[in-house]
Amino acid sequence: MNLFILGVTGNIGKQTLDVVRTSKNKFKVVAVSGNTNLKKMKDIINEFSPKYVSMGKRDDILKLQELYPNIEFGYGIESLIKVVTYGGLGEDLVVNALVGSVGLKPTIEAIKKGRNIALANKETLVIGGEIINELLKEHNVKIIPVDSEHSAIMQCLNGEDFSTIKNIIITASGGSFRDKTRKELRNVTVHDALNHPNWSMGAKVTIDSATMMNKGLEIIEAHYLFNVDYDHIKTVMHRESIVHSLVEFHDTSVIAHLGNPDMRVPISYALNYPSRAQYNGKSLDLVKMGKLHFEELPYSKYPLLKMAIDAGKSKGLNPTTLNAANEAAVNLFLNGKITFLQIEEIIRECLDVFKNDLNITLDKILDRDLKVKDYTYKKYS
Amino acid sequence: MNLFILGVTGNIGKQTLDVVRTSKNKFKVVAVSGNTNLKKMKDIINEFSPKYVSMGKRDDILKLQELYPNIEFGYGIESLIKVVTYGGLGEDLVVNALVGSVGLKPTIEAIKKGRNIALANKETLVIGGEIINELLKEHNVKIIPVDSEHSAIMQCLNGEDFSTIKNIIITASGGSFRDKTRKELRNVTVHDALNHPNWSMGAKVTIDSATMMNKGLEIIEAHYLFNVDYDHIKTVMHRESIVHSLVEFHDTSVIAHLGNPDMRVPISYALNYPSRAQYNGKSLDLVKMGKLHFEELPYSKYPLLKMAIDAGKSKGLNPTTLNAANEAAVNLFLNGKITFLQIEEIIRECLDVFKNDLNITLDKILDRDLKVKDYTYKKYS
Repeated sequence: MNLFILGVTGNIGKQTLDVVRTSKNKFKVVAVSGNTNLKKMKDIINEFSPKYVSMGKRDDILKLQELYPNIEFGYGIESLIKVVTYGGLGEDLVVNALVGSVGLKPTIEAIKKGRNIALANKETLVIGGEIINELLKEHNVKIIPVDSEHSAIMQCLNGEDFSTIKNIIITASGGSFRDKTRKELRNVTVHDALNHPNWSMGAKVTIDSATMMNKGLEIIEAHYLFNVDYDHIKTVMHRESIVHSLVEFHDTSVIAHLGNPDMRVPISYALNYPSRAQYNGKSLDLVKMGKLHFEELPYSKYPLLKMAIDAGKSKGLNPTTLNAANEAAVNLFLNGKITFLQIEEIIRECLDVFKNDLNITLDKILDRDLKVKDYTYKKYS
Repeated sequence: MNLFILGVTGNIGKQTLDVVRTSKNKFKVVAVSGNTNLKKMKDIINEFSPKYVSMGKRDDILKLQELYPNIEFGYGIESLIKVVTYGGLGEDLVVNALVGSVGLKPTIEAIKKGRNIALANKETLVIGGEIINELLKEHNVKIIPVDSEHSAIMQCLNGEDFSTIKNIIITASGGSFRDKTRKELRNVTVHDALNHPNWSMGAKVTIDSATMMNKGLEIIEAHYLFNVDYDHIKTVMHRESIVHSLVEFHDTSVIAHLGNPDMRVPISYALNYPSRAQYNGKSLDLVKMGKLHFEELPYSKYPLLKMAIDAGKSKGLNPTTLNAANEAAVNLFLNGKITFLQIEEIIRECLDVFKNDLNITLDKILDRDLKVKDYTYKKYS
């Protein structure tokens, strides 16, 4: 299996390589993209010998070119597309582990090339779901989700007739601030926010977990992945992150996916789909766990959850506006420019300022994405 | 779908008819057996108009014959076989909801007739698993389990490759005496034992739940149904009976089946397999549940659990000896002849007195079954 990995130096990229290491005979890393982490990219090149490497900046590829004269290099968005379309057709899989809307165009080009995609970049479906689902049909390509929740749902749906789904139930750990009141959230720091109770993740998704925007994005993603109405996608707060999600069928049967929080399990599932390869992780010990807790995930505490669902329901460019405002606001928060609660204020503001347009195209999505980010950065930097 | 229902007047039979009522256009009740409940059988005849009816005693069928001259009647073991082999071949399903070893022969005849079987009679597989699995292959017949645990496991295995199973994990509520010490068990009454915390079941299986023999029998049943080694069939105590069982795969993924305790769900699944028909039961409300508990199921408290697993592992006639001694002992307990803890003493005694024989045939199984019961009743009545 030839792998084309976007975001290889990030958190999901790193764990993807862990999975590749366990079956080096099965997987060949052909092309990869990183952003700014030159040292990590050198290590990856030394270990996996990819044929094509993309970095964020021209300077970095010049340095790499000197060290590795037999490897092709590129930078910028065009080189991300080169990563996913590199070489001829074989048994191929694109792993899209980019963070943010930048993942959309490479996903589209991978589909057009006819390559299946292990998708960790949820923004692809959040902002481009309508376009993507058409393209998947047209090119007979599959998206296999890497998010633990969506991988769980996909596994629960194994062998099932989708028309018998009653509800999809997505679990949420509650994020770093699950035990704080709205009042206490006024003064939380970046450091507090990055301290996720269960999962080790990148900065962006850890903040999204704290605001619960992450769960909102996941609901939109689930809507497009599994073709289920928003009214039949529920959430439940589950502190232990052991139950990764559930599907209720129309006979009241509920099938759930459980396991220790370890992203290598859904990554391995996506890389080996439709097989299930062995993975020597830690077995779940329910007796040791003792209890699993389930609570409501109230909109009153997490207004971004409702804002995301509403944006998803309203379709068109609203999900793009929501996502772009969130990307910019989280970035501003991480850089100390705004407070935690300003994230939701900014997103609400952007959804007011930028009007919805139901008649979407890829160009309109990319244009809206840029404009919302520009607006937000100019006003709040 | 033509239904041939053994044990129609019992607890599972009653709930099977509840499921039939929800899709009267889909199911036709062709032949049924009851035992002593004449009144209930009359109601069933009036509502479902079966063509053939079996009862335990000749007197009862004489009474029924007068009332229903157009229906065929029979009694005794031969008429149970008539129930499952009645009529020509169509879209047929046998529902075996008999209690005890009496279910084995009718199951075998149903398989020979080429009819699939919804199996609630776990004794069929406990004492005859080796023979049954050969016959299923030979006649290309399927057994679909009705037990909530085994139905759960079957649903968890939907679309999965059996070679990727690492462990099957069967949940146990702990039965009526889960919070009693061994010392307290010395003086428990039949009335105490019949008070199961979660499930409404027949007397035999409720006592088996209290002794944990039921879980032992289920482990043997699971071994034959899913072809998994005893060392990879685990148990966990789960008070709420919401998680009905789980399967761990070799990538550490665990798939579980959850739902409110309602036998009509697994019955509906078995009747409609491989489809999943709508059933208007109560949806599981995890938030309302709040917590799910998992504890160890210690052999020290439940010696019959280990005795059953050991009997299963040793194969041959030992499972038959175990099961026959249990059937007789539970009967004696229900009739006030022995104490609760004598059940396990009697089973241990029988496994000592009756030697194992690995070279089994149907005749040897039925002969051993009779001899162990005779021995037990004569000694303890």
